Amino acid sequence: MSSLPIGIFDSGVGGLTVLRAVRRRLPNENVIYLGDTARVPYGMKSRGTIERYAVEDAGFLIRKGVKMLVIACNTISAMARERLRAEFNLPLLSVLGPGARMAARVTRTGRIGVIATEATVESGAYERAIREASQDRGVEIFSRACPLFVPLVEEGETDSQIARLVAEQYLAPLREKRIDTLVLGCTHYPLLKPVINATIGAIGAEDVALVDSAEATAEETAHLLEKRGLINQSADAGVSRFYVTDAAGRFHRIAEKILEEPLDHLEAVEVWGHDKLETK
Amino acid sequence: MSSLPIGIFDSGVGGLTVLRAVRRRLPNENVIYLGDTARVPYGMKSRGTIERYAVEDAGFLIRKGVKMLVIACNTISAMARERLRAEFNLPLLSVLGPGARMAARVTRTGRIGVIATEATVESGAYERAIREASQDRGVEIFSRACPLFVPLVEEGETDSQIARLVAEQYLAPLREKRIDTLVLGCTHYPLLKPVINATIGAIGAEDVALVDSAEATAEETAHLLEKRGLINQSADAGVSRFYVTDAAGRFHRIAEKILEEPLDHLEAVEVWGHDKLETK
Repeated sequence: MSSLPIGIFDSGVGGLTVLRAVRRRLPNENVIYLGDTARVPYGMKSRGTIERYAVEDAGFLIRKGVKMLVIACNTISAMARERLRAEFNLPLLSVLGPGARMAARVTRTGRIGVIATEATVESGAYERAIREASQDRGVEIFSRACPLFVPLVEEGETDSQIARLVAEQYLAPLREKRIDTLVLGCTHYPLLKPVINATIGAIGAEDVALVDSAEATAEETAHLLEKRGLINQSADAGVSRFYVTDAAGRFHRIAEKILEEPLDHLEAVEVWGHDKLETK
Repeated sequence: MSSLPIGIFDSGVGGLTVLRAVRRRLPNENVIYLGDTARVPYGMKSRGTIERYAVEDAGFLIRKGVKMLVIACNTISAMARERLRAEFNLPLLSVLGPGARMAARVTRTGRIGVIATEATVESGAYERAIREASQDRGVEIFSRACPLFVPLVEEGETDSQIARLVAEQYLAPLREKRIDTLVLGCTHYPLLKPVINATIGAIGAEDVALVDSAEATAEETAHLLEKRGLINQSADAGVSRFYVTDAAGRFHRIAEKILEEPLDHLEAVEVWGHDKLETK
C-alpha cells in the first residue's frame, strides 16, 4: 500500500505548483497527476457541474490505484470536497485547509485578504476555514474574485503591463483594507507572484505576507502519510506520471515551464462515463 | 417541416450575437439555442475534443427537432464543420463561410486581417475560405490569435483600460501590415467592437472595415431557407428557447445584456452520452 502513488488532480495546469512542492518535500514518493484540460476552467462553473467533474477526476485516479488524493485546485476544494469525502473512502487532502491554517498562523493584525476564482469566493469556504483555524482570535477577511488571472497565466502573460494593470484593478480594494496577509486562493496565482508582490507586497512600511498553499499542502501531505504509516519506504527517487483529458501538446509546454524538468510520462485519457461504478 | 425551429449552437454565450442577427433578419422563425457552458471555452482545446463536443451539441439540437443547424462558433466551424457534415444529414451553415465571403467582397487592397481563437487560427480555415472566395484576385491574409479577448468579454471587461491595452497588444502587428479589412473571427469579438475600432478602426486616413460574420450569417441563413422552401409561413413572431449545459444563472445575466430582452425559456440540460445513437 505505501508504495502506491499519491494522486493529485486539478482542472488543468495550476495544480502543478502543488505537485512541484510535494515532489520537493517527498522526493521518494510516486505521483500520478490528472489535469482535466478538456473541461478547464472550473472557476466560473456551477457547484453541480464542478461536483460531477471532481467525482469523475477522482474516480480515474482511484482506478489507477493511489494511496491518497490531493485536491490541487481551490475551486474543487471549495465546491466539491464534501461530495468527494462522501463518495470515496481514502485519505483526502485539499489545498484549501492548509492555506487557511497558514493564513491564520502568519497574520499579525488579523486582517486577511483572499483572492480566488468566482466559484471559490462565492462558496465562502476560505472564510469559514480561516475563522475555524483562528479559533477565538478576531479576524477580518476580505475576499475578491480575480477571474482574469487564470487566463493570464494560461496565456503566459505573467509579467507584462497587462498583468500589472489587471492586478492593480483587483488588488487596489484589498490594499485599502490594509490587509497584512494575502491568501493566493487559486493554484494558478503563485505563477503571478512577482506582479502580485509589486502591487500589494507592502502597504506603507509593512510587508504583506503572501500565502501560497502549495508548500503548506506538501507539508500536510507528508504529515498525513506519516500518521497513517503510508510513507514510501523505497530509497529510489519517485516517478511522476501525468494524465490529461485533452490532447497533450499545450499541457506539455506549460508543464515543463512550471516544473522546470522534462515530463517522464504524459498521456491523454477519458475520465467520464465511469463515475457510477466507482463510488463506494 | 418549415415550422420547425432553426438550431443555433456555440460553446457559450458568443453565439448569441448570431442569434440576435438571425432573429432580426427572420423575425417569424422559431429558434433553439444551445450554449455548452459546462465545457466552455473550446478555443484552446484540440481538434479531437472540439469534434466530440460539436457532435454532442448538434446531436442534442437534432433530437429536439430542428430544420437546419447554424454553427455560431468560429472554433467549431474551423475544427469540426467537416465532421458534422459527415455525421448529420440536414442543412448546415457555419459562421466561417459567410464571414470569409464578406471579407473577400469588402476588401479594396486585398490586405485582410483575421483575429480569432488559437484553434481557429491554427486550423488555417479562414485563410482557405477567404482565398477560395477571392478566386483569382491576389489577397494577403494576416492572422492573429487573441486568446484573452474571450475571457475579457465573459468578464464584461469590454470597454476598460485593460481591454484597450490587450487590444493594442494584439492589433498593433496588424496595423503595421496596413490591412484594410479585419475579420472578427470569433463570435465574442463583436462585443469588443468599440475597443477594436478605437485601436485599428482607421490606419492613416483609411478606414479599416470590421467584418462581423453575424449579419452575413443571418443573411445566408435566410437564403438557404428560401432555397430549400423551409421559410416558416406563420405570421406570428418566432419564439426562442435557450439551453445550457451548466447551471443557468451566469448565462442568463450575460444573455439578457447581449440580447437586450428577457429570455422566454432557459433550461440546463446534459448533451453528452447520446452521440453514438444520433449519427446517421
